[in-house]
Amino acid sequence: MIEEAKKSFEKQGFMHTLGAEIIDIDTGILKIRCEKQKSLTQQHGFFHAGVLTSLMDTACGYAALTTMPKGSDVLSVEFKTNLMRAAKVNTIIATGTVVKSGKTLVFCEGKITDEKEETIFATLQGTMICLKN
Amino acid sequence: MIEEAKKSFEKQGFMHTLGAEIIDIDTGILKIRCEKQKSLTQQHGFFHAGVLTSLMDTACGYAALTTMPKGSDVLSVEFKTNLMRAAKVNTIIATGTVVKSGKTLVFCEGKITDEKEETIFATLQGTMICLKN
Amino acid sequence: MIEEAKKSFEKQGFMHTLGAEIIDIDTGILKIRCEKQKSLTQQHGFFHAGVLTSLMDTACGYAALTTMPKGSDVLSVEFKTNLMRAAKVNTIIATGTVVKSGKTLVFCEGKITDEKEETIFATLQGTMICLKN
Amino acid sequence: MIEEAKKSFEKQGFMHTLGAEIIDIDTGILKIRCEKQKSLTQQHGFFHAGVLTSLMDTACGYAALTTMPKGSDVLSVEFKTNLMRAAKVNTIIATGTVVKSGKTLVFCEGKITDEKEETIFATLQGTMICLKN
Repeated sequence: MIEEAKKSFEKQGFMHTLGAEIIDIDTGILKIRCEKQKSLTQQHGFFHAGVLTSLMDTACGYAALTTMPKGSDVLSVEFKTNLMRAAKVNTIIATGTVVKSGKTLVFCEGKITDEKEETIFATLQGTMICLKN
Repeated sequence: MIEEAKKSFEKQGFMHTLGAEIIDIDTGILKIRCEKQKSLTQQHGFFHAGVLTSLMDTACGYAALTTMPKGSDVLSVEFKTNLMRAAKVNTIIATGTVVKSGKTLVFCEGKITDEKEETIFATLQGTMICLKN
Repeated sequence: MIEEAKKSFEKQGFMHTLGAEIIDIDTGILKIRCEKQKSLTQQHGFFHAGVLTSLMDTACGYAALTTMPKGSDVLSVEFKTNLMRAAKVNTIIATGTVVKSGKTLVFCEGKITDEKEETIFATLQGTMICLKN
Repeated sequence: MIEEAKKSFEKQGFMHTLGAEIIDIDTGILKIRCEKQKSLTQQHGFFHAGVLTSLMDTACGYAALTTMPKGSDVLSVEFKTNLMRAAKVNTIIATGTVVKSGKTLVFCEGKITDEKEETIFATLQGTMICLKN
């Protein structure tokens, strides 16, 4: 389902708006890179919490899709973001990892780090649902 | 703090990217309208969950700011989104409401509805922190 | 499914431990009362956050069950608790309400209040899953 | 603050009710063991989700306290539990780990595993607040 995940990602107009690109994908894991632009900022000029969440949600959703049966589609059920420190960098990496892939629900964890994946700016716990087509 | 909230909202590059505008603001409550554009969609052409969350986070953050002392600034600590049904409409309203405003932390609830505020597409529970300047 | 919810509640050894009893139940809503005992406290002698969460989780779970088809069972998928103020009272009411009942998932909201249901001490947002037997 | 954490834990009547005991504690980490009893079960005879959450909340809270300045006290602000699989075992370990310790807020992660810490049954993300005495 890796190719399906890539294709579905490309269909998300919002990922284009964020300038987000997949830099790594394998079964159960997905990484997205995003560069800071003025169009993605909050009131202090840092990445908006909503941008961080959008990237983690998408990374988790498609990481989940890679673990689902052929022909499935994925939707987010719920997710929770913790914002640990302001992302005062120009490049961020969103990583989505599958923790448990069930028949209907897939539970994932996401994080936002700097480019070297050393400092964690935010984390996400989320539940994705498998839609059979 | 209503004027401060409006001014800070204007500084968020990301709200401009979403085409979001404040349509109602009072102490402890804020409403934002957003129109669908291809640039805000997920893979099926509906509003991206990240857009819904970004709007609710911002509505809650500035609703919180209106309850804080003069000179304060606001940051999101954490929030949780539940996605109840796909937002298959062209216009959405994000409402942020303060549930409890403490000295340091402000607890808020958000929701995304259709323009008539009848159908709920998503909800958010979040915690905001008051930064003294 | 109201009778089924009551019966299943009775099977929860943990609800007996908490001294919890159902005081109101209808389709999509359930209320539980709990009296403070030393055995339910945190370090300052107030209700433990875990007790509040357990009551809200159970109220939401069985509120969800009342909306499910005959023969279903219910499990919690996830929930999020916000603790607004210490529950410095002797009697608390946990209310669980169904916000959206889908075929597979049921989304609920819970709250802990004083006996008059005026002051809110904690809230919960949670997702329940319907298990077909 | 390790001794303070141990002492405060002992004051929680609810931890005695759960039969919970600290088996490991160091700065930023705490592990609690709990044995299954009928008094801790949900309707199928497994550990109640509320018990799992109570243990993770407490493990995280006291892990947070070990990172706070002398004389501090700790309260839970919010937490989110994901339930991945039924805890069909007789002994569980709740581990609380500090992810980021700030001046006011401490962000923690918790998990429930079997005794060998191999299988994860549930996870928690939570925020604790430092109260200065």
